[in-house]
Amino acid sequence: MNIESLNKLLHSVASGNLSVKKAAEKLKHISFEDITYAHIDHNRSLRKGFPEVIFGQGKTSDQIIGILGKMISQENIILITRINRHNADKVISHFPEVEYCEDANMVVWRKHEIPIHGKGTIVVISAGTSDIPVAREAYLTAKYMGNKVESIFDVGVAGIHRLFHHKKLINKASVLVVVAGMEGALPSVIAGMVNSPVIAVPTSIGYGVNFGGLTALFAMLNSCSSNIAVVNIDNGFGAGYMASAINRV
Amino acid sequence: MNIESLNKLLHSVASGNLSVKKAAEKLKHISFEDITYAHIDHNRSLRKGFPEVIFGQGKTSDQIIGILGKMISQENIILITRINRHNADKVISHFPEVEYCEDANMVVWRKHEIPIHGKGTIVVISAGTSDIPVAREAYLTAKYMGNKVESIFDVGVAGIHRLFHHKKLINKASVLVVVAGMEGALPSVIAGMVNSPVIAVPTSIGYGVNFGGLTALFAMLNSCSSNIAVVNIDNGFGAGYMASAINRV
Amino acid sequence: MNIESLNKLLHSVASGNLSVKKAAEKLKHISFEDITYAHIDHNRSLRKGFPEVIFGQGKTSDQIIGILGKMISQENIILITRINRHNADKVISHFPEVEYCEDANMVVWRKHEIPIHGKGTIVVISAGTSDIPVAREAYLTAKYMGNKVESIFDVGVAGIHRLFHHKKLINKASVLVVVAGMEGALPSVIAGMVNSPVIAVPTSIGYGVNFGGLTALFAMLNSCSSNIAVVNIDNGFGAGYMASAINRV
Amino acid sequence: MNIESLNKLLHSVASGNLSVKKAAEKLKHISFEDITYAHIDHNRSLRKGFPEVIFGQGKTSDQIIGILGKMISQENIILITRINRHNADKVISHFPEVEYCEDANMVVWRKHEIPIHGKGTIVVISAGTSDIPVAREAYLTAKYMGNKVESIFDVGVAGIHRLFHHKKLINKASVLVVVAGMEGALPSVIAGMVNSPVIAVPTSIGYGVNFGGLTALFAMLNSCSSNIAVVNIDNGFGAGYMASAINRV
Amino acid sequence: MNIESLNKLLHSVASGNLSVKKAAEKLKHISFEDITYAHIDHNRSLRKGFPEVIFGQGKTSDQIIGILGKMISQENIILITRINRHNADKVISHFPEVEYCEDANMVVWRKHEIPIHGKGTIVVISAGTSDIPVAREAYLTAKYMGNKVESIFDVGVAGIHRLFHHKKLINKASVLVVVAGMEGALPSVIAGMVNSPVIAVPTSIGYGVNFGGLTALFAMLNSCSSNIAVVNIDNGFGAGYMASAINRV
Amino acid sequence: MNIESLNKLLHSVASGNLSVKKAAEKLKHISFEDITYAHIDHNRSLRKGFPEVIFGQGKTSDQIIGILGKMISQENIILITRINRHNADKVISHFPEVEYCEDANMVVWRKHEIPIHGKGTIVVISAGTSDIPVAREAYLTAKYMGNKVESIFDVGVAGIHRLFHHKKLINKASVLVVVAGMEGALPSVIAGMVNSPVIAVPTSIGYGVNFGGLTALFAMLNSCSSNIAVVNIDNGFGAGYMASAINRV
Amino acid sequence: MNIESLNKLLHSVASGNLSVKKAAEKLKHISFEDITYAHIDHNRSLRKGFPEVIFGQGKTSDQIIGILGKMISQENIILITRINRHNADKVISHFPEVEYCEDANMVVWRKHEIPIHGKGTIVVISAGTSDIPVAREAYLTAKYMGNKVESIFDVGVAGIHRLFHHKKLINKASVLVVVAGMEGALPSVIAGMVNSPVIAVPTSIGYGVNFGGLTALFAMLNSCSSNIAVVNIDNGFGAGYMASAINRV
Amino acid sequence: MNIESLNKLLHSVASGNLSVKKAAEKLKHISFEDITYAHIDHNRSLRKGFPEVIFGQGKTSDQIIGILGKMISQENIILITRINRHNADKVISHFPEVEYCEDANMVVWRKHEIPIHGKGTIVVISAGTSDIPVAREAYLTAKYMGNKVESIFDVGVAGIHRLFHHKKLINKASVLVVVAGMEGALPSVIAGMVNSPVIAVPTSIGYGVNFGGLTALFAMLNSCSSNIAVVNIDNGFGAGYMASAINRV
Repeated sequence: MNIESLNKLLHSVASGNLSVKKAAEKLKHISFEDITYAHIDHNRSLRKGFPEVIFGQGKTSDQIIGILGKMISQENIILITRINRHNADKVISHFPEVEYCEDANMVVWRKHEIPIHGKGTIVVISAGTSDIPVAREAYLTAKYMGNKVESIFDVGVAGIHRLFHHKKLINKASVLVVVAGMEGALPSVIAGMVNSPVIAVPTSIGYGVNFGGLTALFAMLNSCSSNIAVVNIDNGFGAGYMASAINRV
Repeated sequence: MNIESLNKLLHSVASGNLSVKKAAEKLKHISFEDITYAHIDHNRSLRKGFPEVIFGQGKTSDQIIGILGKMISQENIILITRINRHNADKVISHFPEVEYCEDANMVVWRKHEIPIHGKGTIVVISAGTSDIPVAREAYLTAKYMGNKVESIFDVGVAGIHRLFHHKKLINKASVLVVVAGMEGALPSVIAGMVNSPVIAVPTSIGYGVNFGGLTALFAMLNSCSSNIAVVNIDNGFGAGYMASAINRV
Repeated sequence: MNIESLNKLLHSVASGNLSVKKAAEKLKHISFEDITYAHIDHNRSLRKGFPEVIFGQGKTSDQIIGILGKMISQENIILITRINRHNADKVISHFPEVEYCEDANMVVWRKHEIPIHGKGTIVVISAGTSDIPVAREAYLTAKYMGNKVESIFDVGVAGIHRLFHHKKLINKASVLVVVAGMEGALPSVIAGMVNSPVIAVPTSIGYGVNFGGLTALFAMLNSCSSNIAVVNIDNGFGAGYMASAINRV
Repeated sequence: MNIESLNKLLHSVASGNLSVKKAAEKLKHISFEDITYAHIDHNRSLRKGFPEVIFGQGKTSDQIIGILGKMISQENIILITRINRHNADKVISHFPEVEYCEDANMVVWRKHEIPIHGKGTIVVISAGTSDIPVAREAYLTAKYMGNKVESIFDVGVAGIHRLFHHKKLINKASVLVVVAGMEGALPSVIAGMVNSPVIAVPTSIGYGVNFGGLTALFAMLNSCSSNIAVVNIDNGFGAGYMASAINRV
Repeated sequence: MNIESLNKLLHSVASGNLSVKKAAEKLKHISFEDITYAHIDHNRSLRKGFPEVIFGQGKTSDQIIGILGKMISQENIILITRINRHNADKVISHFPEVEYCEDANMVVWRKHEIPIHGKGTIVVISAGTSDIPVAREAYLTAKYMGNKVESIFDVGVAGIHRLFHHKKLINKASVLVVVAGMEGALPSVIAGMVNSPVIAVPTSIGYGVNFGGLTALFAMLNSCSSNIAVVNIDNGFGAGYMASAINRV
Repeated sequence: MNIESLNKLLHSVASGNLSVKKAAEKLKHISFEDITYAHIDHNRSLRKGFPEVIFGQGKTSDQIIGILGKMISQENIILITRINRHNADKVISHFPEVEYCEDANMVVWRKHEIPIHGKGTIVVISAGTSDIPVAREAYLTAKYMGNKVESIFDVGVAGIHRLFHHKKLINKASVLVVVAGMEGALPSVIAGMVNSPVIAVPTSIGYGVNFGGLTALFAMLNSCSSNIAVVNIDNGFGAGYMASAINRV
Repeated sequence: MNIESLNKLLHSVASGNLSVKKAAEKLKHISFEDITYAHIDHNRSLRKGFPEVIFGQGKTSDQIIGILGKMISQENIILITRINRHNADKVISHFPEVEYCEDANMVVWRKHEIPIHGKGTIVVISAGTSDIPVAREAYLTAKYMGNKVESIFDVGVAGIHRLFHHKKLINKASVLVVVAGMEGALPSVIAGMVNSPVIAVPTSIGYGVNFGGLTALFAMLNSCSSNIAVVNIDNGFGAGYMASAINRV
Repeated sequence: MNIESLNKLLHSVASGNLSVKKAAEKLKHISFEDITYAHIDHNRSLRKGFPEVIFGQGKTSDQIIGILGKMISQENIILITRINRHNADKVISHFPEVEYCEDANMVVWRKHEIPIHGKGTIVVISAGTSDIPVAREAYLTAKYMGNKVESIFDVGVAGIHRLFHHKKLINKASVLVVVAGMEGALPSVIAGMVNSPVIAVPTSIGYGVNFGGLTALFAMLNSCSSNIAVVNIDNGFGAGYMASAINRV
């Protein structure tokens, strides 16, 4: 339950428009709701400013639909991440109002358009064309959390003049999300150019000793620039979430 | 060279108090200065708001002293990290005005007290007593970069009531730095309680399958909370730096 | 052969109801039975209180059926673990009385209901919804080995109030089985709350540097709580078995 | 503070022998005590039946002495693990009544002899002579936690008749702690012989691909016997603690 | 070309039954034959007593058929290992006289029955039912290289009395091949019982931290018995080959 | 844009055959061209003597076709590497003049035949038949970059006389590309025979502890010969490219 | 106790020269002897043809001396491996008749010269000068187990003509022990030349990605030759022992 | 023996100034010389254009002196790499004419100044100050092999303008050796700027997940630039040697 809905409900009680009994019924699950296969954390919106995000991977479509159904009455926005087309279709057949963003494997449900709360612009940059899906996950997450977001794709260090061309946008960013696979060098170079915080996202793109993204991850953790912190491999969602948290400090 | 010194110099030229020739001489190395074993990046203060930090590990005391000597005329503050007592003593014998913070293996040189620029309070938390040196490195870095910083030590998850006792301070933090070794669970628990960004720092404390901090690192990257990003093992400096960058967004 | 059947047989011999020759024939394989592709350990029930469990993975359905056929005459209960639907169907077509528990990939054959031998209640807890199959394997194993078992699912540390809600049940458990993927932090937190032994089960749920469960495993082995021991990744069966052994000490 | 001391204090209040004010003062730190470098968990005795154990590795002797000093007034027994001779000597010079068990790198402080609370006998077995220090750590921990403990050393699988010689003692154990380095095969063999729970402890003894104990650890986690759970490499303390928890179920 | 064929050819030359020109033509490729995608090592039979074995994995059926066609005229026996049913069928359609041993993924072509050259009996033992395919590969290789071979399957250490039952056969072996997955403990136990050389073969059977056989491999290399040497994971062929080489010393 | 086209264009401007406006239009993207999902580095031909190569893996066929379409007007030759038959067919349906080299998973587009620029002969050698696809990728890359290339396949160290047979060709090479899987020993042996530089390419061929080519990679990096440098696993393209760069020094 | 001593003792009983009571006393420990910190396996000489070897690493000098003292009365030869000079000196001061072979870190005690029992010649070969200590350990072990042994040092593959110079000796060997660090290529090349079994010993010599011998180990396990089996890194003792076992088949 | 000495000797024979007998004596070891602990490869100068280099690590000073003594009469230049000051001093006391380059841990013996044979200029670049020792090893090796060499130190990507300042020298290089630790990004950036071959050298500088240089190594192998090949961690010698080989193509 978000703070907005809670306030409205309490005002109704105060004004006598809602009986205490009915209000209590509505608030019964304000902490969490146990539906056997899940303890839905309805308190998260109040506590963290954004509701629980449904991690789609490893859940059945029935479980996803069940959780979504319990949340929809209490929230303004709900994200389902790492959901494949098959499960997304099943969700859509129950909740036709959701939107499937296939380029980021994400389902979005919104009560209304999300207003922008963040202070500055978050800029999402990818080193290669193949890194775009992860970059898009970061982009959409940050956007649906209420931020202004821009993106630049395929500006890896093998032709570094392409990056420098975007220097102006890079310098104006309040937070940067930099997505790269292979040798993962791009975040170091960008962080060396700016004083804003950089969230580095390693991707699993590459082969041989890229080790499914480990090499990029370790390279980013070893960066000789210091305004960098790192999230898990292919974790575009986490990067967008963290960027949004930073953009509200 | 920091922006303050640069402005002063240009004003002197404008007012005729400094000849163009002398100004040019002073600005010769504004980009960088090549002293054979190092290319000192004097431009960093201008570009990033904080001068190059001297990474002490793997450098001889002569190299450290040489670099410090070249920087001191151009900066207000200089940090040397990962410097042992032996090398610190040598530095002190050349520059008696520096201070050695042994609990963080850091040498600090300051022209004057550092004013506070950061918006909120950075809170540094450690899971165990043995993690304190890394937490102190983060604390001092954030402090010398101009932030208000507070700390809580030894509140690991095996007695989680100790953590909850500090809930008020934790909730008021603008950014949190959470330092933990062993299973590295503390950042997940804390990030689940707040909506501020959390910088997680794994430490090498532990034995057996802690793998010198790798287990804590990977646990933190796998956190089921999302407002977390991670730095290298034992990298208190990087965490303090990143927290400071976030605290100015 | 279990102790009950053996006693009955020997009483029949003592009473003259069974000839020595026939008894010898029946006892021929009391140690083990060699059917070329398997040495069935019929002695296990006598030695360990529970018959050999058939590990389904990597065995053909013919091999499973062959082994089950040889055991059925001698035991009260037989479990087949890690068996997929295809092989389970083949087993069912031969032995229609078996039951397939698909949510735990387990086949169960029972001569009669299993009485409860264990002293206290075993509580099985999972951190996430996706960890449920492993938790169910532990649950069923402990149950069919004659224990009272209860379960709580999806109470991970990102919303730790959900866990504390179940404090009463957690405190009354004689043994706890705690199942978690990703950063594997839940067993540490729970073990810090109780003085009962905790069996921690890492799962392969997660992505990137969860390494198919290794990160959770190592985190659990590094727990700062001490009343914890760990089993292999996704080894719900082993956890249930060990919990049952503990529950009879 | 342990339950015994707490009861005594409350009886004094009830009988008027202790003023409420003085009792409150004594109970001030009943939850925990913050001494800057440590949050001492005085509540642990009440919650878990045994006080916090001081993990000596990575702590200075001053820190150890400081923590010990705060605990001594509230507990009957205190253990310091992984403490080297140098630090142990410093502790002894402050608290001459402590005892240093060098073969297990452990310091013990006892108000009085520890009565036996455990139900059965814990048997600690080591595969080789070089594994003895770890086995002794398990032995002493279990003993000081109030259990009857016996031990058998150097009965590895290369001469398996040595193990079978002790079959009687092995079979009577309520819990077994089995300590092995190199290929770590001993716990599998022993667990196959008994129905009691086995806590397996890998040691770092060996060379080459023993990887400091990892090979033994992984072998134990892969055991084809099921009444086994595993603790961290060289973690004799954890094994003894877990065995004690099991011995009280 | 094997020594037998070579002798015959040279006798024909000596007796005038074969012209020097024709003999030279026949001997043209006695060293090797370059067919672009392969340099067939026809010299191997002479040098090593057994012809080149065709490693089927990673080769197209056309390549396998091409190589086999060139070898068939010069050898008495040819083995193709790691060949799947699809490719085996293609080979059979060209060379109907070959035999496909599906339980070992091996194709065999023989000019005539292979006489026994080895001195003693090679005994192949597997720890589990699932290890049988690897054990069969070792069995067939040793047999087709001219040895007397016997086998015992599914005698793992969790029920060690099953192993001791076969003590007589184990003691009479000249060489033992011991195949095991999971914790890989069986070779240590067997090598401790005998003075013959033991070739240990780790298999990829298991899950979690068996790491596709690595744990068994490392356990075997760390064996506390010394009459052991190890081959690659799942390398039944290599074990059978090495056992055969030993059996002729 | 390559140097040849640029010169022609500038001559047309100089001679008045091309207006400045039209020339500017044509040169608009001479640095790079941003087509949202890619920043095509048209400057690469000028800077590096060879245009950007399209890495096919992880790109959709639409993306590949889009990039190719933008490059074709500006280059003489374009390579697409790591492209499967499905995507290659889609490319061919748009650009029927391209050629698909299935044995190397490479698509080639050429305006005209590539003249030979390299100084000497590049020799590509593979250890086994299964390594041929990687060797072919190196061969074709070096050839299409304008070099004379020869190849020798399947001359691994288990029958080292096959290698010595080609000593003459090996000695005359200006650069050698040596491709090997399994133990990766061939580059060491060859580099010990010659004074030319050897580019070693590990392949993923093998099983068990070949770790998908890691063992061959590490063996090559540890070579006791010194005229060796190594590229990523299965990176035939990179080896051919590097060999070509060396052949023009 | 070896078979020779046992026969003598039983003859004395048969002839009445030794009373049954005294004989029983002498045979009391024929199985093993428990001296608390060790279970000495006196049965090993009878069972395996060679007494238990004392693994010196990780044992105190007191433990070594204690074990040696108990064995000396029952054996003809005793080896102590991996013993440093300090401990060796302590052993010598108790048993001046032992010999310390410093180049192999081995102590030897012999009642008399060891006669040669092995059938053929064992040849020990090292790739480099730095591998000699491991090769010497293999050499001495094989020699003291009663074999004719010869050695060739520093014939690595970077100058392969050095190896071929010794072809005659290599071909006459009944068993070969081949010791190599770095890329570990030598065993493959040698095994390709002969039909005798090759025991490959990886050493920890090298740096960077030799990983303390792992690369050589994995290369040897991946050998494209088949008459190879491998022992642990730096395990010269095990190689010599295995070679000796093979030499008696 | 180098080609120059060999020609001189043969001319002496041809002119009758040297008897056949004496010449034969001098040429006795032209292939190699067996001095028990080493097979000195005197043929290497003839075969590879540069004599065997003595790898100092793991050799005793006596062994180094012995080998050097045998080589000095036959060569113009001899390098000893990875030799510490202690051993270098011992070498100097025997051969006072050698020079110890402590910044590269290298000893050099020269008959006369080395003339320049290489075609172009080799440029050695290091990312950081701490990488200088490895860069110096590459520099000296290339120089003593007869090349013109220049160097640039401490131009890492965190302040990339420092690198671009040296663009002219970088572009004129015939071969580049790029040395970097931490994230190892520098070679990718440089290789993207030039068309010359780049030899990348990872160093062990860094901490945490730099894994002693592995992260830099893997990053370099994953470079998105293609004119790169890589040598072992800290292998400055190999990089200098390979660069020299390339500079003579």
